Amino acid sequence: MLIPPKINPSVSLAATAAMQINSDRLRHRLQQLAQIGRLPNGGVSRLAFSAADQDARAQTQQWLQMAGMTVRIDPAGNLIGRYPGQDETLGAIATGSHLDTVSCGGSYDGALGVIAGVEIAQTLHDAHAHFHHPFEVIVFADEEGSMIGSKAMSGSVESRMATLNRSNSNPLAKALTAIGGNWKAIEQAKRQSEELHAFVELHVEQGPVLESVRAAIGIVEGIVGQRRYQITIEGQANHAGTTPMHLRQDALVAAARVILAVQALANDEHKQTVATVGEIHTIPNTVNVIPGTIKLTVDLRDLCDRHLNQLQSQLNQNLQTIGQETRTKIALQPTLQTPAVLADAEIQAAIEQSCQMLNTSYHYLPSRAGHDAQSLARLTRIGMIFVPSRGGISHSAQEYTAPQHCLQGVQVLWQTLWQCDRQLI
Amino acid sequence: MLIPPKINPSVSLAATAAMQINSDRLRHRLQQLAQIGRLPNGGVSRLAFSAADQDARAQTQQWLQMAGMTVRIDPAGNLIGRYPGQDETLGAIATGSHLDTVSCGGSYDGALGVIAGVEIAQTLHDAHAHFHHPFEVIVFADEEGSMIGSKAMSGSVESRMATLNRSNSNPLAKALTAIGGNWKAIEQAKRQSEELHAFVELHVEQGPVLESVRAAIGIVEGIVGQRRYQITIEGQANHAGTTPMHLRQDALVAAARVILAVQALANDEHKQTVATVGEIHTIPNTVNVIPGTIKLTVDLRDLCDRHLNQLQSQLNQNLQTIGQETRTKIALQPTLQTPAVLADAEIQAAIEQSCQMLNTSYHYLPSRAGHDAQSLARLTRIGMIFVPSRGGISHSAQEYTAPQHCLQGVQVLWQTLWQCDRQLI
Repeated sequence: MLIPPKINPSVSLAATAAMQINSDRLRHRLQQLAQIGRLPNGGVSRLAFSAADQDARAQTQQWLQMAGMTVRIDPAGNLIGRYPGQDETLGAIATGSHLDTVSCGGSYDGALGVIAGVEIAQTLHDAHAHFHHPFEVIVFADEEGSMIGSKAMSGSVESRMATLNRSNSNPLAKALTAIGGNWKAIEQAKRQSEELHAFVELHVEQGPVLESVRAAIGIVEGIVGQRRYQITIEGQANHAGTTPMHLRQDALVAAARVILAVQALANDEHKQTVATVGEIHTIPNTVNVIPGTIKLTVDLRDLCDRHLNQLQSQLNQNLQTIGQETRTKIALQPTLQTPAVLADAEIQAAIEQSCQMLNTSYHYLPSRAGHDAQSLARLTRIGMIFVPSRGGISHSAQEYTAPQHCLQGVQVLWQTLWQCDRQLI
Repeated sequence: MLIPPKINPSVSLAATAAMQINSDRLRHRLQQLAQIGRLPNGGVSRLAFSAADQDARAQTQQWLQMAGMTVRIDPAGNLIGRYPGQDETLGAIATGSHLDTVSCGGSYDGALGVIAGVEIAQTLHDAHAHFHHPFEVIVFADEEGSMIGSKAMSGSVESRMATLNRSNSNPLAKALTAIGGNWKAIEQAKRQSEELHAFVELHVEQGPVLESVRAAIGIVEGIVGQRRYQITIEGQANHAGTTPMHLRQDALVAAARVILAVQALANDEHKQTVATVGEIHTIPNTVNVIPGTIKLTVDLRDLCDRHLNQLQSQLNQNLQTIGQETRTKIALQPTLQTPAVLADAEIQAAIEQSCQMLNTSYHYLPSRAGHDAQSLARLTRIGMIFVPSRGGISHSAQEYTAPQHCLQGVQVLWQTLWQCDRQLI
């Protein structure tokens, strides 16, 4: 049951004053993890289910156990460390992230959130302290691919996922065994809402916003809803020399107007929407032939699903106008729709108060990339804390978050978990 | 020497009244030629130097000889029929076109101009008539590819052409032998200006203009100059989710503005310019990544080289503005420059007068496709007569010009040659 959140910051500060995050150990463990799957160019390759992924999980399991946690692996391959609460009948306060990376990823994406959990557990353990709630650190399986871990935990696995092509060309159902999972028992990975009282994830931003506003902490308002479309434009391929301008049905000229119309969708006053044409295919794509057919993709993201509906209507209207004016036939086909997920308002407030207590600069922003927290929102209230990515870069050997920012992120998470523990009893 | 063109139409009419083009034989010969290289879909494949090309040339050689012509093949593979003039010291009045097609071409492109020459020679021969000038029918080699025939005749062969990959993967220098040419003697194919007094080519329009204005005859004002460019746009590839709109350097958004700017170049009051972006390549071309690099092609054509220079300046200026406003780096690289060639004013006038005499509708227009006449202009005055292409289509099995239009084209050519013969003594 939720007690009205009348927080007394001094209580939390007092409670944690003696329990400081060990910045040296944090940095050292981040470096240690980054050695697993290290590439010559400084990047990290720990594809889910690979040997490197297994090694990183084994190392983390050892750390979690050193921190006094009992560790289990669920049928979805999630590695779950649990530290007893003062009241074991309460749902757990959980944090965590993922250890797998893209094929040439960086040292922070996922790893930071896992190490943060490890360090917080170790800090509690060293002080013989306990939250009221049990405390869990969850390493989600295959975040960069199928997101099987968080999907299974929230009960949103679809049977067709069994055949998804994963590491070493194994289908997911088989690949899972490499990390101790078991596809046949996947439904047992699903947890009940009562088991988890809150989930707060620390992650690198993977975008340039925090750096551009010079904030150390991002308070995530939610994870944006996403719509993807394929647009097909049918004009008339024709000789680029002999066809006068006024007799053309140029699909690429129509596409140019569509691209600008998509960009204009995102020009709202709140500057929260993003709209992208990332892919374009032209037929015949020859210097001296007027393009006859164009296929292009649209990716639209916003925190408000209703606003996304409005944008889709507006886009449809624009396409009709452009089709008429360019004498082309334009069709819009939805290919993906993911609803927006809002972060819990009280957790956002707890993060803000933690920043104020720690005298750390912060900035509210949406997460426009997907995260495991998105699935967890089906189970429990969620929150996310971002720290700056240098140059906004991730999924790259150039991915970098300064040690000071990593430390501040863990400190804010630590403080936030304390507040959640008190507020959400 | 050119005598001031005070033409008396009645003279020409009287001279040719008894010598009518045989419309049945014309249609029959067009059909006969269309059987050589016939494809199951109704198209024609007579790639230069192929067996079908050789067969069509052999058939044509026979027809030229039947028409009382002496026939030779020059070192560039041009098939040249010559019919004596009343004064053999004069330069020849010439017509002709090509017999080769693209891989799936139609029955009219090139063939009509050759058969027209054959029919005019046969008509003269049947009436035991002669122009003042010698009369030549020229079948140019490899018009759809290297244009080696007309280039060699006008002395504009470059040595690097020897290795151009032609039919059966043979380099041009070797492929030439299949049609009686000889690369080593190619320079001997060059003719002197004095040898040719005028060249008038009948050809299908390969565009929709004549059909759209319902004219039977196109009087070609010239063959447009052509400029091609490659434009490279360097933005910044980035995550389509996490990068806010105002921090983007989206190369495809810049490209969309470039495409519209290119189109706008051709919006002049005379509607003569054409401007096309036919080819676009996007890197990385992925639905969820902001495009980082775009390469696109521009094809610009106009009858006035000075106007093309102005358009290039204007385009450069536009690119600079677009680059600044989209924070991208845009570079323009010229890849092709062909000067415009004007048709001789007196030949244009002769075509118009012929149309008036024959009570045939006509329309002035530029040729925006290349033709052998373009090279011939280096040697002598040239003119071109177009007949309508149904739907503007060519280089296709759907290519079609109505028998009546073919006949009118040959009649106007016939009449025009008579006028040239008289005017240009």
